Amino acid sequence: MNKSIFYHAGCPVCISAEHDIINLVGSENVEIVNIGENQSRIQEAESAGVESVPALLTPNGNILHINFGASLIDVKS
Amino acid sequence: MNKSIFYHAGCPVCISAEHDIINLVGSENVEIVNIGENQSRIQEAESAGVESVPALLTPNGNILHINFGASLIDVKS
Repeated sequence: MNKSIFYHAGCPVCISAEHDIINLVGSENVEIVNIGENQSRIQEAESAGVESVPALLTPNGNILHINFGASLIDVKS
Repeated sequence: MNKSIFYHAGCPVCISAEHDIINLVGSENVEIVNIGENQSRIQEAESAGVESVPALLTPNGNILHINFGASLIDVKS
């Protein structure tokens, strides 16, 4: 199985959801990407369909927007 | 580990997220509850902090609101 990718931006809602996702799926099954710190991956997240963070890109390409931390527009600005 | 509970209301967004969650965490680790059909469990969902469906109640009591299908208010009416 390919890994999921968890996109976040360091916000409290993001960190809380990150812990939950790691507990649920296992840290070996998910790559954590902080697009607030690593802005070079924002384009990739956007192309995958991420509109807000935190969001989980599943191995089959679906985006699960989990709770709401920040919009991608705010992360970019 | 206690199971997670996935609350939904049968909407297309809910069904899609249900498949993703089952793929991610395994069907043996999550109880699926359709509160549209099983209205007796709406109160329980509300008490746990569910505001909209689909939502996942994690074993440690956190609620992950996943995408957006319908508000709990709409499910109740």
